[in-house]
Amino acid sequence: MRSSLFANISLTTGLSLLVCLSFSVALMLQYGVGFLTQFSVKSVHPQSWQQVVAAKLQRDNDKIPVDWRLDSNIIARAKTTKRLTGDFIESLLDSHSMAITSLDIPDLVAFMENGTLTAVQVITAFCKRAAFAHQLSNLLLEIGFDIALARARELDAHFAAHKTLVGPLHGIPLTMKDQFHIKGLETSMAYVSWIGTFEGKKGTGMEKHVESELVRELYSLGAVPIGKAPETNNNILGYTFNPHNQNLSSGGSSGGEGAMQALGGSAFGIATDIGGSVSMPAAYQGVYSMKPSAGRLSFRDVANTGRGQEVMPTVAGIMAHSVASLRLVFKSLLSTEPWTRDPYTLPIPWRSDNEYQNDNQSNRKPAFGFMPNDGIVVPHPPVARALQIVRQALTDADFERNSLNPNILPYVSELLDWLPPSNNHSSEIHGPIARGDGCPDVWEAIQQSGEPIVPEIENVFPGGKRRPPIPLPEYEQVVLKMNDYRWEYNDYWQSSAGKTSSGRPVDVVIAPVTPHTAIPPGKFIYSAYTDALNVLDFCNVVIPITFADKNQDTVDPNFQPLTDKDRQNMASYDPELFDGTPAAIQVFGRRLDEERVLSVAQIVVDAVAAWKRKHSQQ
Amino acid sequence: MRSSLFANISLTTGLSLLVCLSFSVALMLQYGVGFLTQFSVKSVHPQSWQQVVAAKLQRDNDKIPVDWRLDSNIIARAKTTKRLTGDFIESLLDSHSMAITSLDIPDLVAFMENGTLTAVQVITAFCKRAAFAHQLSNLLLEIGFDIALARARELDAHFAAHKTLVGPLHGIPLTMKDQFHIKGLETSMAYVSWIGTFEGKKGTGMEKHVESELVRELYSLGAVPIGKAPETNNNILGYTFNPHNQNLSSGGSSGGEGAMQALGGSAFGIATDIGGSVSMPAAYQGVYSMKPSAGRLSFRDVANTGRGQEVMPTVAGIMAHSVASLRLVFKSLLSTEPWTRDPYTLPIPWRSDNEYQNDNQSNRKPAFGFMPNDGIVVPHPPVARALQIVRQALTDADFERNSLNPNILPYVSELLDWLPPSNNHSSEIHGPIARGDGCPDVWEAIQQSGEPIVPEIENVFPGGKRRPPIPLPEYEQVVLKMNDYRWEYNDYWQSSAGKTSSGRPVDVVIAPVTPHTAIPPGKFIYSAYTDALNVLDFCNVVIPITFADKNQDTVDPNFQPLTDKDRQNMASYDPELFDGTPAAIQVFGRRLDEERVLSVAQIVVDAVAAWKRKHSQQ
Repeated sequence: MRSSLFANISLTTGLSLLVCLSFSVALMLQYGVGFLTQFSVKSVHPQSWQQVVAAKLQRDNDKIPVDWRLDSNIIARAKTTKRLTGDFIESLLDSHSMAITSLDIPDLVAFMENGTLTAVQVITAFCKRAAFAHQLSNLLLEIGFDIALARARELDAHFAAHKTLVGPLHGIPLTMKDQFHIKGLETSMAYVSWIGTFEGKKGTGMEKHVESELVRELYSLGAVPIGKAPETNNNILGYTFNPHNQNLSSGGSSGGEGAMQALGGSAFGIATDIGGSVSMPAAYQGVYSMKPSAGRLSFRDVANTGRGQEVMPTVAGIMAHSVASLRLVFKSLLSTEPWTRDPYTLPIPWRSDNEYQNDNQSNRKPAFGFMPNDGIVVPHPPVARALQIVRQALTDADFERNSLNPNILPYVSELLDWLPPSNNHSSEIHGPIARGDGCPDVWEAIQQSGEPIVPEIENVFPGGKRRPPIPLPEYEQVVLKMNDYRWEYNDYWQSSAGKTSSGRPVDVVIAPVTPHTAIPPGKFIYSAYTDALNVLDFCNVVIPITFADKNQDTVDPNFQPLTDKDRQNMASYDPELFDGTPAAIQVFGRRLDEERVLSVAQIVVDAVAAWKRKHSQQ
Repeated sequence: MRSSLFANISLTTGLSLLVCLSFSVALMLQYGVGFLTQFSVKSVHPQSWQQVVAAKLQRDNDKIPVDWRLDSNIIARAKTTKRLTGDFIESLLDSHSMAITSLDIPDLVAFMENGTLTAVQVITAFCKRAAFAHQLSNLLLEIGFDIALARARELDAHFAAHKTLVGPLHGIPLTMKDQFHIKGLETSMAYVSWIGTFEGKKGTGMEKHVESELVRELYSLGAVPIGKAPETNNNILGYTFNPHNQNLSSGGSSGGEGAMQALGGSAFGIATDIGGSVSMPAAYQGVYSMKPSAGRLSFRDVANTGRGQEVMPTVAGIMAHSVASLRLVFKSLLSTEPWTRDPYTLPIPWRSDNEYQNDNQSNRKPAFGFMPNDGIVVPHPPVARALQIVRQALTDADFERNSLNPNILPYVSELLDWLPPSNNHSSEIHGPIARGDGCPDVWEAIQQSGEPIVPEIENVFPGGKRRPPIPLPEYEQVVLKMNDYRWEYNDYWQSSAGKTSSGRPVDVVIAPVTPHTAIPPGKFIYSAYTDALNVLDFCNVVIPITFADKNQDTVDPNFQPLTDKDRQNMASYDPELFDGTPAAIQVFGRRLDEERVLSVAQIVVDAVAAWKRKHSQQ
């Protein structure tokens, strides 16, 4: 039973295997840390792994300014509170910090450009909120408030001297998954053996000195990293619960980054994805995200386990608080021409011509594929309802005009039923490609410290042993399957041109991200809605639509499961437990079609907002 | 000794291992076919493999119209003639065919557009010349004159009806390496077991019905395939010698395509490359070629062995009679937007902005890296001289104005010494990536017919057995080496910005293609000048510059070898044997920078032409 639960793990990288699976809370309470220390191994550190962790946590927490430290009562109360987003965290903030951290990137930039705010003010406010978020939810493996404020002072000095911003992301705070190297901060990827080393190697002199290419670009654009977020479960910070509903998982593997965004601790986040590790935590936590196709954002000088697997590469993705912010961050990164510094990045600049304009100047309108389910696992009622809201919003010609843009004409979008090649194909491809090597680097990183294998990856190392790698010729046979799947899917997509009024193929597809909202740790069984995008190298944007509502979202008593997994999945739905949890959808596009996907995602957001106004739903 | 000779084989695909290595003529004469039949194996055909081959050859040759069949005396004379290009083949042609087949693509298109020539006339003339070339040199595994003429009639009907050409390659004949599927023709890749099958499978009904994506695109542009060329050595057509100098190899693995171009049997050719298999045969045979980076030209539905290896993919490349023709074919193919039909092709259209304009309107001029040798193996005197001609032509401010374009101002180009990361790195990466799987599909294709392993790939199957594949984790370690090499090389390239007057990095690098002109079969020892481009995924254009001249091209008596390979290579130089053989150089650029490379290649061609006029050298 347990092994079947793990059958569809989406591996990201290294401990990023954690994805959505995790301890159940019950297990954690029952066995505690002792449960984890199941076998002994050689250690690169003279101390026990627990001592190494304790020292790191102490160093990390010492970086929190004294007047930002939360009272132990508050922290204790947080443990027993269902929802930490909204009132809980906001009540801790002074009004100035609250006002600043409520602003989205375009407004923050505008206020710094006109001198209303300084970078130091912005960075201070977000660092404070991030410090609170961390103390409530254990969200920072590395705290970089000091270096962030130093950089903010530089930015302010630049602005004072030149009256111009350093770049389009001037003074914008971000957090990053702890795979990216930031000078002055440690990179451990939550491997205990990596603490005090450079990617597990001692004495290189490189620790805290290397900077990932993407980090260099962000700094050059004016953005300011303030800390590094963990994966969903690890032996340093423990499990990351969902701050919207602490009974539930934050999603994986970039769960920490998603939770930081949900708690508003930074203006955007950079995470990594090989099977939904950006999309799922964003969807679970009511955050917008974008996973580009491989080759648009640099992955040079990024710590990783799973390196050397380039058939389906891990990619950097963005989490933020709006589509506009995703677009701004992505477009700004491309403006640095990353391909000149990283030849694995493609020389494709931002292509305005591929964007849809949501205005009445244009007679072009996007056509959508609509896939309410994949014929294998049907989403839980809150997600099904989110999809129907989108459908209605896009096809309701009568919705009110966008109040911000009164020129926008309503229109009825085309939504075509989307019945592509089965997600079963992608499931057969994803695992062997991502984990076919037996994950030797994950194994080594774990072995070197003596830390235990967390339950989420026990199936990768059954019986506490490495699986033998797939022989290279067999691996190549899986790649051939991937070729065929990509071609077959592309043919299906092209064939949609015969069904649209424009005669062009559909622009994007609307689909679930997972067949549920956030779920309790350990209940995850099906990742194909996102795995397929990695196998196909498609790009997507996740859009939060609504929240689970125990009164509206009930299982149809006549529900007939399509498959065994479908039965399992629907059986796990609990209206009471899930009540109030964010429900999202994804808009995905073809390979390297990010500009189109982002622009159509904005149209979806506008349409849903108009529909909600009309239907008085927030 | 023999195994060291094989140490640097550039593998293309399947029998395309053949590259530049081959039997020596002596061995062939000494052992004949009996030498090849060294062991027996099960066969997919009821007949012996020799009978299967004989039947295929008979079918193929029956397709040559009776009045295009050469007298046996001529064929016999060809066997003992050193040079088949120029007078030998031209003397066989009627003046009309001679005139047409002397035209390059832009002129052919112009004459068809203004009605001076019909497509049937053009196709007929080239088919005739190709038929002669084939009979002299065994250059066609499949003859498609009949389907080509049928297509030409369609094109003429279109032109008659609409007074417009079908596309920018209307009526242009091409030959293709026998990996591309063309409806009506067989694809065997010269595997005997594939004869009468679809990629080795009997009874699929797919044989002669499948069309490669690239072929579809070519047809849509108006181009007309007339036949399929073999790899350099195989058990169907035997060894392909160099028609400029039949003592020497045609180069590999696309040697047949290169020889067809050298003999003028088609206006352009499409071949494949994973380690110089387009560049080397072009250089050996005085033909222009272009190898793009992976992802610009579609490789969908192309027969291949080595499929599933996507870290360093085999790419389609172009051979033609001028840079203008390479540019036209490449640009035309991109105009079909191949990425809409093949998601492995990148959505990068032709980018005029990246082209250099060779005119006095532009104050931009390219900067060159100049690498006369790689510090490991120094080229033979004819290639060294070709490189010096280019250097002089580009830096001689005094050369006469281009007579065709009197507006072109002469200028002194910047040539920077090019000392990049060592080609030794790429050599360590290329072999394991290309052949790390032990080439199971090549093995299977050979085993199924009972044909012998040709000597060129004996080292791939030492002792007549498959090598065990590299374990996947070790393979991934090689990929990491590739990452580092690409990044290191890119950093070096970027650093050149500090040395140019424009402050931009150099545009292209001028280098040898191989450290020799064409050489006798079996003498090939060093492929790193081209392997490196595949490891780096760089793009190149090969430009023929001059011909080996026994009077000018002698080894410096003070020559001191840099390495053991260098000593071996220079020892193989023989002024008398190589006299009259084409000597070429390559212009290579960074990943996916084809527009720049093609435009700068044209500048090089123009400069060399002007320099030759000045120095009265042709």
